[in-house]
Amino acid sequence: MSQRKPPRGRSRPGSAERRKTPAERPRKSALRRPGPGSGAAPIWLYGAHVVREALANPRRRCRRLLLGDDAARRHGAELRARLAQRPPGEAPPLQTAPRERIAEVLPDGAVHHGFALLAEPLAQPALRDLLAGPPALGAADARAVIVVLDQVTDPQNVGAVLRSAAAFGARAVITTERHAPAESGALAKAASGALEHLAYVRETNLVRVLQALKGTGFWCLGLSGDAERDLAAADPGGPLALVLGAEGRGLRRLTRAACDILARLPTRPPIDTLNVANAAAVALYEVLGRERGRDAP
Amino acid sequence: MSQRKPPRGRSRPGSAERRKTPAERPRKSALRRPGPGSGAAPIWLYGAHVVREALANPRRRCRRLLLGDDAARRHGAELRARLAQRPPGEAPPLQTAPRERIAEVLPDGAVHHGFALLAEPLAQPALRDLLAGPPALGAADARAVIVVLDQVTDPQNVGAVLRSAAAFGARAVITTERHAPAESGALAKAASGALEHLAYVRETNLVRVLQALKGTGFWCLGLSGDAERDLAAADPGGPLALVLGAEGRGLRRLTRAACDILARLPTRPPIDTLNVANAAAVALYEVLGRERGRDAP
Repeated sequence: MSQRKPPRGRSRPGSAERRKTPAERPRKSALRRPGPGSGAAPIWLYGAHVVREALANPRRRCRRLLLGDDAARRHGAELRARLAQRPPGEAPPLQTAPRERIAEVLPDGAVHHGFALLAEPLAQPALRDLLAGPPALGAADARAVIVVLDQVTDPQNVGAVLRSAAAFGARAVITTERHAPAESGALAKAASGALEHLAYVRETNLVRVLQALKGTGFWCLGLSGDAERDLAAADPGGPLALVLGAEGRGLRRLTRAACDILARLPTRPPIDTLNVANAAAVALYEVLGRERGRDAP
Repeated sequence: MSQRKPPRGRSRPGSAERRKTPAERPRKSALRRPGPGSGAAPIWLYGAHVVREALANPRRRCRRLLLGDDAARRHGAELRARLAQRPPGEAPPLQTAPRERIAEVLPDGAVHHGFALLAEPLAQPALRDLLAGPPALGAADARAVIVVLDQVTDPQNVGAVLRSAAAFGARAVITTERHAPAESGALAKAASGALEHLAYVRETNLVRVLQALKGTGFWCLGLSGDAERDLAAADPGGPLALVLGAEGRGLRRLTRAACDILARLPTRPPIDTLNVANAAAVALYEVLGRERGRDAP
């Protein structure tokens, strides 16, 4: 378990160049990559936007593309063009099928618009590579911000956090390996394509993750309703890890203790907490979006 | 249909005092109250927080409180005390039941924690009363902000918007009567108690709503990804209606044309839109939360 497997797919440029000193190097268990092995079970991605974004990602291994009759009629040519742009040998076969046939392979109630793609979960970078390399994942010109989720279980919420993180230019979303969703169709749907653009890293020990982040110059700022200072006032600037806990429970004691700073959002009683995905969106806007907003015309 | 029924329950102070001039008065169809009549079909509310907030609301008509065995053991005394504080004749009977029995009356997968309450939908104020009266709904000391949703269909999203609106001190959420969810258990759960503190008004014609809002001094600001200016730069100050469209489609043409100002959130490609509830939370933070944040210690 402590032996880290080499990442699958293409290695990111720069990740090998910078070697850490032993003191700087986080402990191994914080660095283990929970990504899939070569035999990772494929998952069904669905929805027009999600499937298009997955096909546009050369790192995404795709096995089967299933289009509903109507979707094939309207978008077949466009999708064949997308398949032709995939890396050699990486274009999955395209099949058309009645709409009901597509619903059969997906979870109940999945809103698929006639688009379904059987694909392998993405190989995610190890935390060490993520921190050592240039921001190949996430926006290169943005302030380095990483979202850390402490046991947020709902795929809808985690997917929405991924989407907001990508939209505001954060580098990655890191979460716990247990009590957090693996990559799935529901997660990808809520992320609305963001999974293809942002690292989603699941780690065993979140305290060690925070220590590793602090070791590379990140401030760890935990959001907590009982904090004294507001986020806008507490933000120290520079590389930042935004740490959010599950709804109700909030941050676990040790996660909380591992943060440098605690801050709250300026909500008011009697409804003084936000849904975790909404809280993440607001916090990302405060630390990444407003700065850009001021620069905009 | 054009005859407005008198609101049920207690009238809000001040709503009768201020009479509008005919020119100032919005057209009747924009003012019709879509709230329930006296025979409104009851709905099952569920979840510990939602049920507690509903019981604490004297305006909420409650018919039956159902507690799971475990919830009754742990919280029975507290809930009986809450029932005793209800207005005379307004305490519903409390029954205990096996957990499975509670799941039977609720939608599949509902997370209820052993709390279910059969209650009538709330009588919502007419738009005219909402605009004419003091901010009896919403926070009295906050800037007057109303969220307007243009055909946002998903109860989870609308519920999350209600929650954020209450948390940042907005006065109301107004939405379309069609293509928008009625009050339901799922909506109330996502709103996490906010329905008891904030007006949720459904109107037939959203353009007339915006005209009525403008007529009482509100700026109507529509969020649109193709707007030139960022929200922080475009916010004119003063009473504000934040207008958000459904995901994908965005604002309808006439809704868009009825806005005074269009603005965008500072997101970046390739993922340059947020989930609608997250967009609402960010916008509410910008126009209501940051100001408060600056005043905080």
